[in-house]
Amino acid sequence: TGAPRSERRDFSSFVARTNTCGELRSAHVGQKVTLYGWIQYQRQGLFLVLRDFQGLTQIIIPQDEARSHVKELLSSAPVESVVRVTGVVSLRPPGQENPKMPTGDIEVKVETAEVLNSCKKLPFEIKDFIKKSEALRMQYRYLDLRSFQLQYNLRLRSQIVMRMREYLCNLHGFVDVETPTLFKRTPGGAKEFLVPSREAGKFYSLPQSPQQFKQLLMVGGLDRYFQVARCYRDEGSRPDRQPEFTQIDIEMSFVDQNGIQRLIEGLLQYSWPEDRSPVTTPFPSMTYEEALADYGTDKPDTRFGMKIVDISDFSQRLGIHFVQNALSYPHGTVKAICIPQGMVSDIFTYSVRFMPDGSLKSLLTKFLGQEQQSELIQELKMQVDDVVLLAAGEHKRVCSALGSLRLESADLLEAAGLVLRDPAVFHFLWVVDFPLFLPKEDNPTELESAHHPFTAPHPSDTSLLYSDPTKVRSQHYDLVLNGSEVGGGSIRIHNAELQRFVLEKVLKEDSEVLSHLLDALEFGAPPHGGIALGLDRLISLIVGAQSIRDVIAFPKSFRGRDLMGNAPDYVTAEELEPYHIQVSWPVAEAEAKKN
Amino acid sequence: TGAPRSERRDFSSFVARTNTCGELRSAHVGQKVTLYGWIQYQRQGLFLVLRDFQGLTQIIIPQDEARSHVKELLSSAPVESVVRVTGVVSLRPPGQENPKMPTGDIEVKVETAEVLNSCKKLPFEIKDFIKKSEALRMQYRYLDLRSFQLQYNLRLRSQIVMRMREYLCNLHGFVDVETPTLFKRTPGGAKEFLVPSREAGKFYSLPQSPQQFKQLLMVGGLDRYFQVARCYRDEGSRPDRQPEFTQIDIEMSFVDQNGIQRLIEGLLQYSWPEDRSPVTTPFPSMTYEEALADYGTDKPDTRFGMKIVDISDFSQRLGIHFVQNALSYPHGTVKAICIPQGMVSDIFTYSVRFMPDGSLKSLLTKFLGQEQQSELIQELKMQVDDVVLLAAGEHKRVCSALGSLRLESADLLEAAGLVLRDPAVFHFLWVVDFPLFLPKEDNPTELESAHHPFTAPHPSDTSLLYSDPTKVRSQHYDLVLNGSEVGGGSIRIHNAELQRFVLEKVLKEDSEVLSHLLDALEFGAPPHGGIALGLDRLISLIVGAQSIRDVIAFPKSFRGRDLMGNAPDYVTAEELEPYHIQVSWPVAEAEAKKN
Repeated sequence: TGAPRSERRDFSSFVARTNTCGELRSAHVGQKVTLYGWIQYQRQGLFLVLRDFQGLTQIIIPQDEARSHVKELLSSAPVESVVRVTGVVSLRPPGQENPKMPTGDIEVKVETAEVLNSCKKLPFEIKDFIKKSEALRMQYRYLDLRSFQLQYNLRLRSQIVMRMREYLCNLHGFVDVETPTLFKRTPGGAKEFLVPSREAGKFYSLPQSPQQFKQLLMVGGLDRYFQVARCYRDEGSRPDRQPEFTQIDIEMSFVDQNGIQRLIEGLLQYSWPEDRSPVTTPFPSMTYEEALADYGTDKPDTRFGMKIVDISDFSQRLGIHFVQNALSYPHGTVKAICIPQGMVSDIFTYSVRFMPDGSLKSLLTKFLGQEQQSELIQELKMQVDDVVLLAAGEHKRVCSALGSLRLESADLLEAAGLVLRDPAVFHFLWVVDFPLFLPKEDNPTELESAHHPFTAPHPSDTSLLYSDPTKVRSQHYDLVLNGSEVGGGSIRIHNAELQRFVLEKVLKEDSEVLSHLLDALEFGAPPHGGIALGLDRLISLIVGAQSIRDVIAFPKSFRGRDLMGNAPDYVTAEELEPYHIQVSWPVAEAEAKKN
Repeated sequence: TGAPRSERRDFSSFVARTNTCGELRSAHVGQKVTLYGWIQYQRQGLFLVLRDFQGLTQIIIPQDEARSHVKELLSSAPVESVVRVTGVVSLRPPGQENPKMPTGDIEVKVETAEVLNSCKKLPFEIKDFIKKSEALRMQYRYLDLRSFQLQYNLRLRSQIVMRMREYLCNLHGFVDVETPTLFKRTPGGAKEFLVPSREAGKFYSLPQSPQQFKQLLMVGGLDRYFQVARCYRDEGSRPDRQPEFTQIDIEMSFVDQNGIQRLIEGLLQYSWPEDRSPVTTPFPSMTYEEALADYGTDKPDTRFGMKIVDISDFSQRLGIHFVQNALSYPHGTVKAICIPQGMVSDIFTYSVRFMPDGSLKSLLTKFLGQEQQSELIQELKMQVDDVVLLAAGEHKRVCSALGSLRLESADLLEAAGLVLRDPAVFHFLWVVDFPLFLPKEDNPTELESAHHPFTAPHPSDTSLLYSDPTKVRSQHYDLVLNGSEVGGGSIRIHNAELQRFVLEKVLKEDSEVLSHLLDALEFGAPPHGGIALGLDRLISLIVGAQSIRDVIAFPKSFRGRDLMGNAPDYVTAEELEPYHIQVSWPVAEAEAKKN
C-alpha cells in the first residue's frame, strides 16, 4: 500500500558531471560524459575503475601520443585519488562484458581528465574495511564511509526516515516540532548529561527524551506531533549504546492503545525498504505475562520455537523431594525448554537427552521411572536427540533463566550450522499489559515506575491503584523486532489528580520539579498517548548490522569517545571560568600533576 | 514549478473523531459526527463554540428533558475544557450563517457529550495572548500554543521543512545524515557550551554547526548531504538569539558557487508557502563592496531605495576646509542619503532640507553657493521636502553610519505612516565576494577569518594569499532576505597544503586540534562547498513574526532561561561528582550562603 518510490532523483543537478559512476548502460553508447569519482583500481596505465556512491565505471586510459599527458596523470595518481574524466561511452569489446557490474557492458574512453586531489598512503584498503580493527576504522571514519556497506546503510537510513516523514506529515497530518535539548534535570535523571550555564551553580540537562515536551504539546492543542529527536543518555561505558541517539518520537491526542499500534504498523509498512522481505500487519500481540511465561523475556524472539513449557504438574507427581520443595514456595514452578538435535547437551548439567534407544540420559533419570520418562517425552514433544533443560524455583526467575538459555542454545545451534533465525525474516511483536510499578531493586518495599511516571494505568485496574498498586497493569506497549526492543510507548495520565497521586503517594517523589507538567494537566489537557522508536536499533536490524555504530555516520566508541576528533578533551581553566566550575581532580591524578 | 501540495492528509485517522472542528460544511448536513475540542465560548446553556487546531464549530446544546445531563455537562464546563461531542450536522437557521467562519453555514446538534478534562481558571485568555507580557506567556507556553498564531507558525514551519526535505532528498538525491552534537571544542570556540564527561578534566562541546562533520562526509564520498541540524551557541544574553537553534545544513561535492546558489533558489521556491507572494529566481546578486557602498551593510534591505550616493567629487569642489581634510585621508570620502518627504529632518544635525522655495535649509548652507545648491539637488535627485544626510570620513565607517541612518530613517518614515517595506514582499539577495580575512578587532595587525578558516579563496585571488592576504576575496556567499541574513556558505578549501597555510601562516592558529580534518584532506578529499540556512530566522520572516521565539515551540527567554520548566537549575554536589567538577561560587554568593 506504500506510495510509489520517488525515482525522479537527479544526482547530477547543479554540478558539472553528466552521470554518476553507477548509471551508464549500453543505451548511453556514443554519448560524451563527464564523471567524478575515486580511483578504485588502476592497471598498467591501460584502464582504471572509477567509483562514486552509486557504483563503478571502467575507464579506458588513452594510449595515443596526443593524450600522453592524460595517460601520465591517470596512471600516476594513487588509488583513492579523486578525479574528473570526460570521454565517450563505448561498448566493451565482445567477451569483456562484466555481468556482475551494472555498468559492465560499457566503458568510457577518456579524452580529458583532471586529478582533483591526490590520496596519500591509506591506513587500510577501503574494500576490506570489515577486517580491520574497529578503532582504526573509527579513527579514519571518513575513509570507512567510502565503503559500500556504510554508504548503503546511511543512504537507506535517510530514505526510510524520509518515508516515515511522508507517512506522518503528508498522509496523517502530524506536525514536526523541534523541542529543546537544553532543559533541566528530571527527577531521578541520573543518566542525564549536565551543561553548565553562565549562572553560577545552575545547569541545563540534556534530556533522555522529549517526553515532557511532547505531552505539553498535546496540552497546547498540537494534536499530532512527531520529531526525529536527538536524545542523550550518559551511561558511562556500555557496549552498543551511544551517548547520543535518535528516536522517532510520536504523540497523539484522543488516541487509545489500538490507535497508536495501527499507526506504527502503517508507518513501518509504508517506510519498509523494497529490497527487504515485506512486513505483514497487524503485528501479533502478547501480554507481558505471556511473553515471560513462554519466552522468559519481555522481548521475545519469535522467529523460532523452543518455548518454555510448564511441567509443574508432572513434576509434582514425581515425588522428588527437592522438586516438591521448590514447588511449595509462592510462585514455585518447574519449567523446561526442549532443544532440538542435541547439539548443546554437554554444557548443561541439568539437561535430559532423548536417546535413540528410547531412554532419557540425564543426571535426573535415576529419579524417573519408565512411565515418567515417556510422559516427559510426550509432554515436551521430544524427538530423538533432543535435549531438555529444566529449571525449578520462583516463576519469574525460572522463566528468565530458561529465556536466557533458550537464546544461548540458539547461538550454539546456529554456530553448529542450523539456521534458526533467518536474517531476512522480520518478526514484529507487540508486548502489552506490563506492570505499572515494580519493586525497587535496592529496596523492594518501595515502588518505582516500570517505565515512567506518566504512564496511565490499565482501565480495568484503576481501582487497584489505591488498594494494591503492585497488581496494576499499565497502558504501556513495547514493539519488539526479532527479539530486540525497537520501540515503546503508552497512553499517558491526563488527569492532574491521578498524576499527583502516582508521583506523591505511590512513587513518593517530590512533585515540585514537575509542577509545570502538573499545572498543565489542570488546564484542559486532552487524553493522549504516544510512542518512541529507537531509530539506530531499528535501522541496524533492517540492514543486518552487527552494531548500531554501523548505521551512524560518526559514532562514539563504547567508552563514549570520538576516536577521529579525540573528544571529549581537556579544556583550560579559563574556558571553565564563565561557567563557574572547576575540575575536581582525583587525588592520584592531582598528585601526578604536582610531580 | 513546485509539485502539487499533498491534500491527502487525514487528520482523523487512528482516532474516534469523524472530523476536525474546521471541516464541516453544508455538504455534511445530516451526517452524524464526533468532534473533539476545547470550549472556546459557551452561552447560557444554549450553544458553545468548539475549537481545535483546524478551526471552530458551533455546537447546539440539547434543551430537551431526556438530554438534560448533556446540557448540564456542557453548560457547566469551564472555558478551555476539552470535550467530546457526538451529534448531527444541521444547517444554521436562515440569517444566522456566519460567512467569516469556514464552518459558518452549519452547526452540530449534540446528542451525547463527555467532558474529557476540565480547565481551571486561565492566567490569560487564549485569544488575546498577544497583549500579555511575554514572560507570562512563556511560563504558560502550553496555553499560548493553543493560539491561532502559534498553531499557524509551527504548522507552517513543519510544512516548509517537509517540502525542503522532499526537494533535497526526493528530487536531488541528498542524504539526510545526523552528525554528533557531543564533540570537542573547536579552536576559538568561545561560544560553545561545554558538557562534562566522566573522565576527569575532559569535556565534550556542543558545536555551533556541523561544519567539520559535513566536510568529512564529503571526504567520505557521501556526495550530497543535508541535515536539519540543531546547533548551539552560548552568547550569554542577547536579544532574539537562542542558545539552541536550527539550521538547514547542506554540503555538496564537485560544486561551485553558482551550483549552490541555484540549488538554494530552487529549494526556497519549491518550499515557499502558497499563501505568500511567490519568490522569483534567480535572486539578484551583489558584491560585498557594492553592498557596503550602496547600503552601508553586508545585508542590504533592497525593498526600498534611499541608497548611499558618493558626492566626494562634488564636495571636493566646494572648497570647505573640514570636508577637504576628510577627503585627504586614505579612503576619505563624502557620502549622502536622500530621505523623501522630510519627516526626519529635525533629529539630525547635519541634514539638508530642500525647501519649497528652491533653497536648501541646513547648517551647511552657509558654505554652499546658489549654483552648488542646484548641483547638490541634481546630484541627489532631490524633491521638495526631501532631506539629505551627509557624512564625511573613512569609506567603510561613512558607509556603515549612513547605512544605519538609512534604516533608522525608514523606521521613522514608517512610524509616520509611509509604507516602505511591504511585509508581504520578499526580496532575496546574494551577497558575494566577501574578504577572506579581516583584521582582528582587538589587534588589527593580526588577521582572523571573516567567516571560518575552511573558506576557499576566490580563484582570481589565490596568489594574493601569499603576498597580501588582506586583499584576498573569498568564495563565501550570504543569502539576505529583506535585510536579514538568512544563510551563508562557501566553497571550502579541499587542499591540505592550502588549509595548513591558512591556519598556520595566515591565522597563526595551532592546527593540531584540526589534525583529523587536515589528515582527511590528504586522502583524496573532493572539491566541495555548502551552505546553512537559519531556519528560525527564515520562518519568522515568512510569517512576519516579531521574534524568532514566535516560531519555536519552547523558546528560551533572552537570558537563556526556560520560564515554564525553570531551566537551568541548581543541582546537588553529588550529581556533579561523576563529572569531577565543582561549582566555583562567586565570592558574594559564597558569603551570602555562609550567613
